[in-house]
Amino acid sequence: MTLHGKNILGHRLSAAGSETFRAIDPALSGPIEPPFFVATAEEVDEAVGLADRAFRDGPAPEPAQTASLLERIADQIEAVGDELIDRCGAETGLPPGRLKMERARTAGQLRLFAALVAEGSWVDARIDRAIPDRQPLPKPDLRRMLVPIGPVLVFPASNFPLAFSVAGGDTASALAAGCPLIVKARPAHPGTSELIGMAVQKAMVAAGMPDGWFSMLHGPGRSTGVRLVEHPAVKAVGFTGSLSGGRKLMDVAAARPEPIPVYAEMGSINPVFLLPGALAERAEAIAAGLCQSMNLGVGQFCTQPGLVIALEDANLARLIDALAKLVEETAPGTMLLKPILDGYCEGTERLSRTPGVTPAARSRQSPDPGKTQAAAAVFVTDAETFLASDDLCAEVFGPATLLVRCRSPEQLLAIAEELEGQLTATIHATEADLKTHGRLVATVRRKAGRLVFGGFPTGVEVCPSMHHGGPYPASSDAHFTSVGTAAVYRFARPVCYQGFPQHCLPPELQDKNVRNVWRLVDGVLTKDDVP
Amino acid sequence: MTLHGKNILGHRLSAAGSETFRAIDPALSGPIEPPFFVATAEEVDEAVGLADRAFRDGPAPEPAQTASLLERIADQIEAVGDELIDRCGAETGLPPGRLKMERARTAGQLRLFAALVAEGSWVDARIDRAIPDRQPLPKPDLRRMLVPIGPVLVFPASNFPLAFSVAGGDTASALAAGCPLIVKARPAHPGTSELIGMAVQKAMVAAGMPDGWFSMLHGPGRSTGVRLVEHPAVKAVGFTGSLSGGRKLMDVAAARPEPIPVYAEMGSINPVFLLPGALAERAEAIAAGLCQSMNLGVGQFCTQPGLVIALEDANLARLIDALAKLVEETAPGTMLLKPILDGYCEGTERLSRTPGVTPAARSRQSPDPGKTQAAAAVFVTDAETFLASDDLCAEVFGPATLLVRCRSPEQLLAIAEELEGQLTATIHATEADLKTHGRLVATVRRKAGRLVFGGFPTGVEVCPSMHHGGPYPASSDAHFTSVGTAAVYRFARPVCYQGFPQHCLPPELQDKNVRNVWRLVDGVLTKDDVP
Repeated sequence: MTLHGKNILGHRLSAAGSETFRAIDPALSGPIEPPFFVATAEEVDEAVGLADRAFRDGPAPEPAQTASLLERIADQIEAVGDELIDRCGAETGLPPGRLKMERARTAGQLRLFAALVAEGSWVDARIDRAIPDRQPLPKPDLRRMLVPIGPVLVFPASNFPLAFSVAGGDTASALAAGCPLIVKARPAHPGTSELIGMAVQKAMVAAGMPDGWFSMLHGPGRSTGVRLVEHPAVKAVGFTGSLSGGRKLMDVAAARPEPIPVYAEMGSINPVFLLPGALAERAEAIAAGLCQSMNLGVGQFCTQPGLVIALEDANLARLIDALAKLVEETAPGTMLLKPILDGYCEGTERLSRTPGVTPAARSRQSPDPGKTQAAAAVFVTDAETFLASDDLCAEVFGPATLLVRCRSPEQLLAIAEELEGQLTATIHATEADLKTHGRLVATVRRKAGRLVFGGFPTGVEVCPSMHHGGPYPASSDAHFTSVGTAAVYRFARPVCYQGFPQHCLPPELQDKNVRNVWRLVDGVLTKDDVP
Repeated sequence: MTLHGKNILGHRLSAAGSETFRAIDPALSGPIEPPFFVATAEEVDEAVGLADRAFRDGPAPEPAQTASLLERIADQIEAVGDELIDRCGAETGLPPGRLKMERARTAGQLRLFAALVAEGSWVDARIDRAIPDRQPLPKPDLRRMLVPIGPVLVFPASNFPLAFSVAGGDTASALAAGCPLIVKARPAHPGTSELIGMAVQKAMVAAGMPDGWFSMLHGPGRSTGVRLVEHPAVKAVGFTGSLSGGRKLMDVAAARPEPIPVYAEMGSINPVFLLPGALAERAEAIAAGLCQSMNLGVGQFCTQPGLVIALEDANLARLIDALAKLVEETAPGTMLLKPILDGYCEGTERLSRTPGVTPAARSRQSPDPGKTQAAAAVFVTDAETFLASDDLCAEVFGPATLLVRCRSPEQLLAIAEELEGQLTATIHATEADLKTHGRLVATVRRKAGRLVFGGFPTGVEVCPSMHHGGPYPASSDAHFTSVGTAAVYRFARPVCYQGFPQHCLPPELQDKNVRNVWRLVDGVLTKDDVP
């Protein structure tokens, strides 16, 4: 397929503007054809207007139609074939093996949401029957379920060009909730976005969705995004990216005449606590796991472990030695794009210059700037330095980690207490460790959305139990996850029907449980019909 | 009991400041003793600091303890006896019958949340077991549940001095979620607040809650509230009141270094659509219901029907005649406080002056300004005037309603489409009406949190199916309700445990289902133990 570079406006393509941009191959540090058309203000407004009309004019898609749509998107993505892997690899520097796994994850995620919608219980149906003779006042018939919130705007991630991009988790969950959506494609991988966007468009047409249920716009700067967030018809935003980018959108959304929620996943430093017993038992194994986790995807995971906290002892020295050796052997990797590499280099240079912070190891092989390569790096500091600094807990996006040596359990707990909100926090401990550090689990639970025991934070499972989010600044709203089936709840709101005739109720709320969903009837969870 | 006028700081009382204020009896237009001490900045900080330490230092209260606490609060409120009704009546002008019903509702609400916590399934436990031999990567053990968000700040309502005040819905749901809380008492009913606050304090001590789990502060201006919202240890805010007050707090919270959610319920005009068939069948009955609903609590309900939309015909003339007669017979009522009466008078005068708006009826008896009384009023306009105006959809808080005559179903639908977010929308219709106005239900569903068929919007049931909230500006976040058991979800966030040993997991997530709660195990809802 030849890439056309156009914006997707519902069922058609559009290239109304004259401004274009090209993708950059980070491994070659050069542009790749073709040019992509920056969406004009009119195209932005048309995309949102189409979504708004599609949502307003109905009929709303039935769950079976939505489930089929999600399945078809998965099928269409798989049907793109190797072209997707090739183009995506060129735009991101990510190896084919990783991208194939990510494609499988993307398709799997879409099918998981299809199954969620087909099963149907996610709408959280609740029915409280009337009690006409209740004293002092009769009780009316009340029935509540979740309904779609309206047009959703998605800002994909750069670091997961498939699983968190045009047809990634935000898209899958917004469509599952029954919302039309507009994707503002990541300028870092416009060709990948187009291939996926065209797959989504095909699926939309095949599934009989209204024109405008999906649009995708290109725009390398922030102005397209801000215009989209400010559009009155947009009702919610999904975002994955940097803290500065996410906060900017949060501020724009909060200042609208009608404020809307921005579900921003903005990453974190994912602290790893290594307790003495665990280090005594397996310092080298932990070093190996840590090195692998910190370098996964050249450190460009939002769950990359950027901070390690441990008590000073001989076993910690073993861990540092082993980790240093492994990191030195780690070949430099191509990062997604030059600004990310620049940010990484600035971050590691800042660490190097900080008094009290020692560079402990670095990839022995020099990174090739022509290939946008980053060297892995480990830094070591002590708790006093860490606690006295405001800078050291800032995320350095890339394959670096900072290890903090503590002289007492109190120092270790003080660091846990000082942490900002995190996506994850990890603890390696024995039974005895947990007794000595009794408050650590409770403390990190206040700070993080996911607690990992004896493992590593990278690798985010897509399932009902996953929570990928955390107190600010890890995400904008700790109530919601951007991974796993619960991500659907960001894009649905409850509506209560009072005293409605049966045939005017949605099927999920009618007496006869035609959709066979779990419902809370008079306070009791059941699949039975309402008696 | 003699009122002391002090602030409640955890288990003690405090009157550190020199500034005081008194309640005003609206029926006498004069102050009532005693003076109440405005909380100082130090007292504000101490209240939040206590809550923060109580939350951080644990141990977290067990569900049984929280349930017992909620039961005890209900018991203590009932034990205050008639003094509560007398003082509350003096501070609000509300009659004893209404206040006794509201007290029963308040106690019932606390007991409903106690039952929710005791049953335990609200934590939405989800368990996905490990698959160690999964290809290409093993699946870890993941378990997720809701945990308390941290110290909560509550701004009570003035119009429900018991059910939405110091121990009202926000307090009950925050405590149910396991959060400590600080109440910024409404300056309109400080004596009522003290009586309830002391009842809560007694219950806190008796239930063995940590010192600081509950504080209550006085302060008539906005500065105390803003200082509280800006405090870094506050993690969420519940608010019931005006749009201007709620939006101010939303803006303050969104501008914090760490933004926090403000769950503001800000009222609405609660449109009532009267379709021709229903009017033909029962114009007079609808007029009677409407008159009662618009005048309930002297029109000071957030669900007061302030807008009626109907098609011009002879039956509408019947309804207007009947409504006008009933409104003329309605005696003026004492409003909660003079600023509310002033706002009501401004609003009705604005309507009177608007070209195209006709005053159709008013309480025949003149209101007594010395008793802070408001006259009920009905205004009539046409769809053209309504659609051309920006002002006519603004809430007039009090016993007034604006009736809009439409000349076509299209006009009626256009008005529905123009509405801002609403707490409720009501439809009176026959089967035939619903066929002619097929899109009306879907249109109002996009605008409102609760749809009422054939009834009236006042009267908000406290139960699992209730949704009291709606798209902005009815509430700040359409995802959440402030009434009913689902209100608890505002104050809890998910945490995922990965690979944790059984004994380190909360009881709800251990293999053995010791709490006997509903759990989603490997995608299947069950009360069984994990096999």
